[in-house]
Amino acid sequence: MLSKAQTSLITSLQHKKFRKQHGLFIVEGLKSVTEFISSDYRIHSIYCIMETQTKMGNLLQNIKCTTVSENEFQKITSLKNPQGILALVYLPQTEKIEWDLLRQQHALLLDDIQDPGNLGTIIRTAEWFGISHIVCSLDTVDAFNPKVVQATMGSLARVKLIYTDLPEFIQNAKMPTYGALLNGQSIYETDFKNASLIVMGNEGNGLSKTVIEKIDQAVTIPRIGAAESLNVAVATTIFCSELARQKLSIS
Amino acid sequence: MLSKAQTSLITSLQHKKFRKQHGLFIVEGLKSVTEFISSDYRIHSIYCIMETQTKMGNLLQNIKCTTVSENEFQKITSLKNPQGILALVYLPQTEKIEWDLLRQQHALLLDDIQDPGNLGTIIRTAEWFGISHIVCSLDTVDAFNPKVVQATMGSLARVKLIYTDLPEFIQNAKMPTYGALLNGQSIYETDFKNASLIVMGNEGNGLSKTVIEKIDQAVTIPRIGAAESLNVAVATTIFCSELARQKLSIS
Repeated sequence: MLSKAQTSLITSLQHKKFRKQHGLFIVEGLKSVTEFISSDYRIHSIYCIMETQTKMGNLLQNIKCTTVSENEFQKITSLKNPQGILALVYLPQTEKIEWDLLRQQHALLLDDIQDPGNLGTIIRTAEWFGISHIVCSLDTVDAFNPKVVQATMGSLARVKLIYTDLPEFIQNAKMPTYGALLNGQSIYETDFKNASLIVMGNEGNGLSKTVIEKIDQAVTIPRIGAAESLNVAVATTIFCSELARQKLSIS
Repeated sequence: MLSKAQTSLITSLQHKKFRKQHGLFIVEGLKSVTEFISSDYRIHSIYCIMETQTKMGNLLQNIKCTTVSENEFQKITSLKNPQGILALVYLPQTEKIEWDLLRQQHALLLDDIQDPGNLGTIIRTAEWFGISHIVCSLDTVDAFNPKVVQATMGSLARVKLIYTDLPEFIQNAKMPTYGALLNGQSIYETDFKNASLIVMGNEGNGLSKTVIEKIDQAVTIPRIGAAESLNVAVATTIFCSELARQKLSIS
């Protein structure tokens, strides 16, 4: 049985304000919920239909679990094709940046990415290529927005997201910093073998001025055809793939 | 003024059945409509609000143009943030495949891609990298679906789409054929310098059996992290980028 208070709590978590207030966010679907259960995140509670509860079996041990009817589940899901399981997960604590770890790797920096689907795809793709830290400007869409969580297909459970002032972060990082711009050195001729920061800009406006001032090298994806631009998740993919290619060709 | 018959024609074109029946599809937005006007496509008619009509100026010469009020435009647009211009464009004639041209290039083959956003992003990205032909299996989502058209950001006006039986196409093409699979040779170690076919599979199921039987080489995007899969538009992007990198490093 789903109480009115529970329904109202869950639906409120569609909004950032209430996620912050309650310290919780929503994860839906068998795969994503399973990945969060086995991650460092703490689960607050789970709502599922009987059929899904059976499927999850032992995984739900020691978790507060409410069984709901399919009709009740329809009231709390935001998916078109829900899988009958929804978890409330505690937002991660804001931790100190682990500079020593960060400075040994490539990190992605996102300057005001607005579209939840784009951010989700970026997190999923970054994880495929072994990038463990994504640093977002304060105006980037919230990674705990249910649409972002959904699009990461569980990768959010493992990639570390940091929201901070980007120019200040770049200043403090003291790492080689590459910015994706329309005019710059070809990405295929750029040497990414040392740990570095890769900065991707907003969907419509690209990198902001204050960020451009901090980058060491403008890098471009060469255009062969006539398309005017690339989607930002697509452009980020090309950077992740080229980093991986160079890494694998050394080892 | 918008007549009932016009409204009903336009809204019917959301569906493939009626696009086929009327031989028309919808293009929305200033940039996309402009690109279709300057392409080989034939424009049937344009509907726009006064403000947009002024912006378009001479571009609308010799085109049947209906000026509508903002309220009327709301009835025909399918965009959240419409730009006050919508074109009805004639579907292209089914042409014979230009084998001589095709065999000099790389072509993308799509095996049952279902998501309109994915197909649109693939067309846009392919065009950026100079790929001019995309061959789709008969069950791939229709490229003239308004959501696909929108996501291509005008690139559909220039990329040639062919819908056909894929195994038969591969058989007739007699070109080196690479299939994107989870287990195969690394994409970064595959030599794409000769013209070839690159086949990408369905979002959930990957390549179909009948297609796998026809490919010469399975090719994989190496996974460094823990993500279980990549979005198909992301995977296609990585192939397009690697083709471009190899092409540019030769020239």
